[in-house]
Amino acid sequence: MNNSQTMSKVHNFSAGPGILPQIAIDNSIKAIQNFAGMDLSILEISHRSKQYEAVVAEASQIVKDLLNVPAGYSVLFLQGGASTQFCMVPMNLLDENDTAAYLKTGEWAMRATKEAGLFGKVNVLATSENENYNWIPKDYTIPADCKYFHCTSNNTIFGTEMFSFPESPIPVVCDMSSDIFSRPVDVSKFDLIYAGAQKNMGPAGVTLVIIKDEILGKVTHKIPTMLDYRVHIKNGSMYNTPPVFAIYVCLETLKWVKGLGGVTAMETRNKAKAELLYAEIDRNPLFKGTCAVEDRSRMNVCFVLNKPELEEAFLTLAKERKLDGIKGHRSVGGFRASLYNALPIESVQALVNAMQEFEKANS
Amino acid sequence: MNNSQTMSKVHNFSAGPGILPQIAIDNSIKAIQNFAGMDLSILEISHRSKQYEAVVAEASQIVKDLLNVPAGYSVLFLQGGASTQFCMVPMNLLDENDTAAYLKTGEWAMRATKEAGLFGKVNVLATSENENYNWIPKDYTIPADCKYFHCTSNNTIFGTEMFSFPESPIPVVCDMSSDIFSRPVDVSKFDLIYAGAQKNMGPAGVTLVIIKDEILGKVTHKIPTMLDYRVHIKNGSMYNTPPVFAIYVCLETLKWVKGLGGVTAMETRNKAKAELLYAEIDRNPLFKGTCAVEDRSRMNVCFVLNKPELEEAFLTLAKERKLDGIKGHRSVGGFRASLYNALPIESVQALVNAMQEFEKANS
Repeated sequence: MNNSQTMSKVHNFSAGPGILPQIAIDNSIKAIQNFAGMDLSILEISHRSKQYEAVVAEASQIVKDLLNVPAGYSVLFLQGGASTQFCMVPMNLLDENDTAAYLKTGEWAMRATKEAGLFGKVNVLATSENENYNWIPKDYTIPADCKYFHCTSNNTIFGTEMFSFPESPIPVVCDMSSDIFSRPVDVSKFDLIYAGAQKNMGPAGVTLVIIKDEILGKVTHKIPTMLDYRVHIKNGSMYNTPPVFAIYVCLETLKWVKGLGGVTAMETRNKAKAELLYAEIDRNPLFKGTCAVEDRSRMNVCFVLNKPELEEAFLTLAKERKLDGIKGHRSVGGFRASLYNALPIESVQALVNAMQEFEKANS
Repeated sequence: MNNSQTMSKVHNFSAGPGILPQIAIDNSIKAIQNFAGMDLSILEISHRSKQYEAVVAEASQIVKDLLNVPAGYSVLFLQGGASTQFCMVPMNLLDENDTAAYLKTGEWAMRATKEAGLFGKVNVLATSENENYNWIPKDYTIPADCKYFHCTSNNTIFGTEMFSFPESPIPVVCDMSSDIFSRPVDVSKFDLIYAGAQKNMGPAGVTLVIIKDEILGKVTHKIPTMLDYRVHIKNGSMYNTPPVFAIYVCLETLKWVKGLGGVTAMETRNKAKAELLYAEIDRNPLFKGTCAVEDRSRMNVCFVLNKPELEEAFLTLAKERKLDGIKGHRSVGGFRASLYNALPIESVQALVNAMQEFEKANS
């Protein structure tokens, strides 16, 4: 049986966990059947086996290669999602009387901001909260006396993305959960990058952290062992049993990214997909985008109908055309199409076709 | 292609991640190919889909059914392994001036003890540390003025297991990572049970917590959101994206346990396997066990050669006989055979046969 043939043509626009490359899925199945010629499943082997240690080493290396991670940075695969990073970041970087600077551009940025408040003081430099986070504030200055600046590169729920990052006199921490590996990033401009894997790099259950080692070890309070980045750096993500299979699927996904030409090639693909869909949103008289044009995310495209009463009818058509996962988040309403790396442009075209079909039926 | 046929006959004695039932592996592959008739892989679907919400609900229910979990307890699937529980337990139950009572019976108990010391005072009631943890202390009293008593039901590294638990005037917390679901447990005698899944209930990347709700909410310090059991209880393990696939494999594994007759049937199987191997260790003049007979674990059987110089030769024979993962932990040396639920008695017989073959060759 060819695994690829078991999947029928559903267009997967899920906001996350999101679509993965079929080759990564197929190779992951092979590893479950028989991992590295061990005649055992990857689900039931020791993480200390040399075959699996090679997986973690290769996954770290491919992250470094794809993003040109400079010397002095460590690559970690942790558990707990970006939500756990919301507390690990201040726990490792902020003392009670210190202040951290946060840019509040959406739901996840808000949660990160709130969590930092448990550990120290928080200075919210700017927010677009009163306009339902439909644009990215750019007019602010990062104070030199804060301990770090935190931002969210892409807002999965509201469909905005940062296409430039501010100059900063202090360490920059960025939640890149929903656009990591979708485009080149100058890692040297950041001190800590984190990303839940389940959007652009793998399945749920593993979180990537890229961290500049020298920012650590400066707080005076105690840090629980599992929440101390230094413990995981020292042990190469293997202080305790890592999420073995999830890391393997990430490796296979990142190999696919590399094979297609890396993050530059991904950016070209992602630009083409986003332009195709936004062009239709702007052309089609039935639909409109929800975000400031200059901040429109290439990963999560949010749009609504000018006549909201037609919403159910479009969702029905979408279902008939096998366009899965396009219902918008309740905070925005309407529709959201997530165009992660693995989504082919043919799926975007199928969505555009459905929008045009809907236009004809309703004009 | 029949997935079962892709695995050749390797006997998997790995201490963890450990052997899983082949049917759980096969069904997990099917869910990766096409989950719940969605024509999508379980690796790339929303955890908020009704099909996946049903998985988490069913997994929680089967835990409750298998262990007869009383009313007033919650079942959680978290990330971070038992190592994260080492800090979550005191973070949720212990204030700075409080004291917790710990039984130090091995490496993991020691780490749990050490972690609690970051949050409050620790009273180590008893330990067998000076005899390399080769027995379980039983002669101690749990002080009523401590906040909770923590013990480790099975010591994966040293091969001892608690076959009785002390009466306690205070809440009892137990790390059951390596023997959960291997035997019946009276959950009503415990207030918090936790277990990394990767030994007896699933793959690495998910941690089971069974908690009596009423013990929570009594500490005065702040708890980070992701480390607060109440947050996960309130959100049914779905506060953030859970480890989707790992929970699914647990569900399939626990269905297999239930299908064979539940934890009582597992205990019968596990007793038979352990008795077969310990009988050979005691009979065979070349080998000897490392632990007090009454405390010998049914999950992890530790034994050594009377002539240590023969160790490499036995490991070579084991490899030839496809007995995988029997090298002992460096803290004990010699050999360790882990006999988790999914290991068939035929594998134990194969090990016994090799020991007898080795005896003939070396006498």
